[in-house]
This record gives sequence, structure tokens and C-alpha cells, in this order.
Amino acid sequence: MLKFDEQKVKENMEGALKLRPQINEVVDQIHERGFSNICWLGIGGTYASAMQAVVHMKEKTALETFYENAAVFLTTGNKRVTKDTLVVISSVTGSTEEVVDAVKKCNEIGATVFGFIDKAEAELATLVDHLISYPLNEQLKFFMVADRFMYLAGEFDEYDEFYNEMDQHFAQGIVEVEKAADKFGQEFALKHHQDEIHYFVGAGNQWGATYSYAMCYWEEQHWIKTKSIESHEFFHGMFEIVERDTPVTIYVTEDSQRALSERVVNFIPQICGNYTVIDAKDYDMPGISTKFRGALSPFIIHAVNNRIDVHIEKINCHPMEIRRYYRQLDY
Amino acid sequence: MLKFDEQKVKENMEGALKLRPQINEVVDQIHERGFSNICWLGIGGTYASAMQAVVHMKEKTALETFYENAAVFLTTGNKRVTKDTLVVISSVTGSTEEVVDAVKKCNEIGATVFGFIDKAEAELATLVDHLISYPLNEQLKFFMVADRFMYLAGEFDEYDEFYNEMDQHFAQGIVEVEKAADKFGQEFALKHHQDEIHYFVGAGNQWGATYSYAMCYWEEQHWIKTKSIESHEFFHGMFEIVERDTPVTIYVTEDSQRALSERVVNFIPQICGNYTVIDAKDYDMPGISTKFRGALSPFIIHAVNNRIDVHIEKINCHPMEIRRYYRQLDY
Repeated sequence: MLKFDEQKVKENMEGALKLRPQINEVVDQIHERGFSNICWLGIGGTYASAMQAVVHMKEKTALETFYENAAVFLTTGNKRVTKDTLVVISSVTGSTEEVVDAVKKCNEIGATVFGFIDKAEAELATLVDHLISYPLNEQLKFFMVADRFMYLAGEFDEYDEFYNEMDQHFAQGIVEVEKAADKFGQEFALKHHQDEIHYFVGAGNQWGATYSYAMCYWEEQHWIKTKSIESHEFFHGMFEIVERDTPVTIYVTEDSQRALSERVVNFIPQICGNYTVIDAKDYDMPGISTKFRGALSPFIIHAVNNRIDVHIEKINCHPMEIRRYYRQLDY
Repeated sequence: MLKFDEQKVKENMEGALKLRPQINEVVDQIHERGFSNICWLGIGGTYASAMQAVVHMKEKTALETFYENAAVFLTTGNKRVTKDTLVVISSVTGSTEEVVDAVKKCNEIGATVFGFIDKAEAELATLVDHLISYPLNEQLKFFMVADRFMYLAGEFDEYDEFYNEMDQHFAQGIVEVEKAADKFGQEFALKHHQDEIHYFVGAGNQWGATYSYAMCYWEEQHWIKTKSIESHEFFHGMFEIVERDTPVTIYVTEDSQRALSERVVNFIPQICGNYTVIDAKDYDMPGISTKFRGALSPFIIHAVNNRIDVHIEKINCHPMEIRRYYRQLDY
């Protein structure tokens, strides 16, 4: 299978799940001490993950939790971020300018910052109050933080049962999804690698990922135009430009917002003959109870998207690591 | 001037400003009684206005205030919306299904709903706790609510000074902006009415309007493809697809996020030869103090966009009131 190291994928994910005791040590301490709210702060891809963390929590929580864009925080600010706030960030390089400056601003305010920074030697790592350094799996790290807070707030009684299943079955399950999706990924890539523009529609805990897949993968890494739209917003304007040949992909999750994407799926054949449905439900995840599958949709769909990406990269002879402007020019 | 009734524009805006005593009666009562937070709820265009209200408030407030999509509220829900919450909505027709159902859900929760519903005889008007019926000017109505709350919270000491200037000069000022922008609007329309796709970039209190102008005007009413992007997010992926001939419009506000859009303006000539800058600062607003202009950017830019719209409509021979799918098909 193209660019797929089964062992590596599995080990990385298992390693991420093993961060849980470390994460819980931090979360339990903050819960014990008390906090007013949780702010998920990012920009670009990490902003998208922040959106997902908030949707994930909204399923269950009465805690005040919100996402904030690092650049907006640096200009307009956010007076809900105080010394009693927990700010959660994630950074692969540790060098994203806006995030570094936003964390400095958090330090001035006296907010507690919990950072997942892949590169432990970055300056950013010295600025956070709590640091965990482990590569990749940003969403999973965020969800583990969120779930622990909700467990401690008495909002997630099945926490132990859920993570017992996750620890045993999730990593292998994701590997199997990638394998199951490879043929589809290749066919999809063959059909859409030359699209003038591609529309991605999603909702729920997949919305942040839909926004980021369109922007941070197709636009940034494949140099293909996209628009992403929330499933429910699709009907409030955007769909007027959809015609027979407009390429549209609808992501369908198993969380509470499933019905919003199903509505698009049910409607679209009337106006479009070039659509694709990617439904998390179509992929098995043995050992994970049905009641827990809702939270896993972004991981399942991410695995499917991975397969699309490697095939587009190959067909288009366009290595995904090249950028023409990002970190190449001054801006 | 094409499709421009100066007297009508001015009178409508003056009428909206005259709603302030009615608005204040409601707001003062809610403030007096106490409330936990303010939720701006909408979908499509009203969702965009809700986003703007939150950015407008973030400039000054420590109150908990957030926007919520009506469809998301109906599926995932929002446990921060309680009997102590004020929910603010706006609806022209009063018949948007998701908003009607969301208000019914608010009623079940016991939240207080303040509705601006243009059509007073709609069922929706009977479901809200406080009703104001007056056509158009959604943003202005929302800002008047927001400003009163901030004034009462001791966060907007210049409230009286600001509205004294607004009552005297704003309506005429907006009329003059439309006049000043007409020639530009025509040139812009001539240049871009056939664009394959148009990119709109904006931030701050113009972001919601940028999202909605792209979707609810160009896509829904002109049937031209668009993508809207926040100025700060532009650099985190999207800009990789911009080339010499890519049509990009950057909206520049005078609020706290001005620098984020200026950054795009300063960068873009390096990579693109087909960009336009629409800067609120370029339009006079006599009688309004400089210190207050930041809040007015969305109104100024809206007036500029109005002139673009009427010219595109004429050139493309495409009446803006026609829809192919919206409320034409079942979905």
C-alpha cells in the first residue's frame, strides 16, 4: 500500500494513548485547584482542532469552553481569558509566530497554559505551564484532555469503559480503516485530482477537520482550490452555485450532528451528479461499542483522507511537503 | 444612480436608530433582573450577524457572550444556554425553520428570547419574550443591544456621546458612502462579474459580513463561486492557491483587527496582480469621531458592497431575487 507503514501508524497512535496518565495528572491538578473556563487556542490547522475540541465537549458539558484564534487574541483580545482560565495549545514546530506571542500574552494575564509541543526544545516549550511532547495525533490529545475534564465534572461516567476500549482497540482499528479505504482513496483521487475547485461539506466534530482538510491539505499541500462549508449552512446560500458537474464531498459523522450532513446527502442527488459521501459509519472499528463511535468520526475520516492524499500526491507528481509561499516569503 | 433611493435608505436607517429607546427598555429590564450570558443565535445571514455581534462585544466586554448556529443548537445543543441566558435572534420572514425550532427549544429551556422579526404577524413573533418589528438593519439592531449591555456593565462610558453622534450623522453618512462608492462599484462589477471564483478576505467585525457577502450575495444571489477566509487564516494554507490572476478582495476595517487585514494587503502584491482593497478608512463619515469609527466599518463596507451588487445584477442580467433551489425545492 502506497506510503503506508502499518507498524509506524499503530505505534504512534498507541504512544499517544499512553500519554493519558500524564495528561490526567495535569488535568486533575487543574480541576482540584479550580478554573473558570477552558480556551482552546490555535491558528490554521490547530485552530481547526480547537473547533473540534469545543464541539466534542458541547456534546456533554456545561463547562464554559470556547476556541480562540491566536491572531484575534493578539489584536482584539478576549476578556474571558483570565488568571483562572486554562488555555490548551498544540504545535508541531513550536515556532508559529502567532501562537508563541499568544502564549506570552497568556503568561502576562496569568492564565494556565497546557501545551502539546512536538519539538520539546522550542522556545514555546519553555513558555507553557504544563508540557507534553509527543509527535502527531493532535485531535486525540485534545479529546483526552476534554474527556478527563468532563469525567471530573461528572459529565462522562463511562470514561473508564471508553478508554479501556480505546487502549485495546483504537490503534489497530484506525490501521484497518486506512487499509479498507485505500481502494476508495485511489478511485477518488483519480476522479478529482484535476478539479478546478472541490467543495467539502461537514458538520459536528468533523467540521473543524473539514475546514482544515480543505485548506491545509488540498489548498496548501495539493494546490487545488476548495471551499468548505458547514452542512447546515450549505442550504443557506452556498448550494445555489452547485450544478450537475460541481465536485462535492459530504462527510457524515456518527455524532449528534449526523442528521445535518444526512440532510445534504438526501438532497444533493436532485441537483448534482458529481458528489461523494464519506460516512464514518461505513468503516468498522472492532472492539469499540456503538455508543462511543460518535466521538471517533474525525479519526475514521482522517484515515480515509490520508489515503486520498497519498494517491493525489502521486498522480499529480506534487510532493505534499512543498510550499510556494508558506514560510518561503516574508509576510 | 442605479437602484438607489436616497430618501428611503436614509429614512430606514433613521427609523432603525429610533428603535433605541424600545431596545433599551428590554435590555435595562434584563440587566436589572440579572442574566448569566448572551447568546446570538442565527443561521446563514443571521448567523453571520451573530458572529459580528460577538466580535463587536469582544472589543470591550468581560460578559460571557457567544454565537450559536440554530441547526447546531437543535442537534448538539448548548448547555451554556439556560433559563438565565438571553438569546437574541433576528429574522426577516420569521419563517426560517431552524430558527423557529431553536426558539421553541429556548422556550422549553426557559431562556429569555429577544427577537427582531421584520414580519410581526409571523408565528415566530408569538414565540419570543421581547419583540421588535422593523425592516432591515440587522447589524445595527444587534450592535444597539450589545452597546447597551456594555454600557450597563460599565464597559462603554462613551455610550451617550457615541449615540448622540450616530443619531445625528450616521444615516446621512451612509447615504454619502453609497454615493462615493458608486463609481468604484461599477468598475469592480465590470472587472469581476464573470469571475470563475472570487476570494473575499476579512477580519474583525467585518468577518461575519465577509462570510455572508460571499455566500448570501455572490453565491446565493449572483450565482458566482466564492471563498471567504479570515485575514489571519489566509496565511495558514489558503494563500498557496493564489496566483497572478486569482481575483482577491481584501476588506480592511478600522477596528482592533485592522492590522490583520493590512498584513494581507501588504503581502499580496508579491503573488497576485488581480486584487482589490476595500478599506473603510477611505470613506468619510462627517460628524462621527475617529475614536468611534472602528464599530462602523461593517456599515461602511456594506454600503460599498451594495453598489457592487446593483452593477453586477445589471451587467449579468441576473435579478438578485431569483433562487434556483432555496425555498424552491424540498430539503
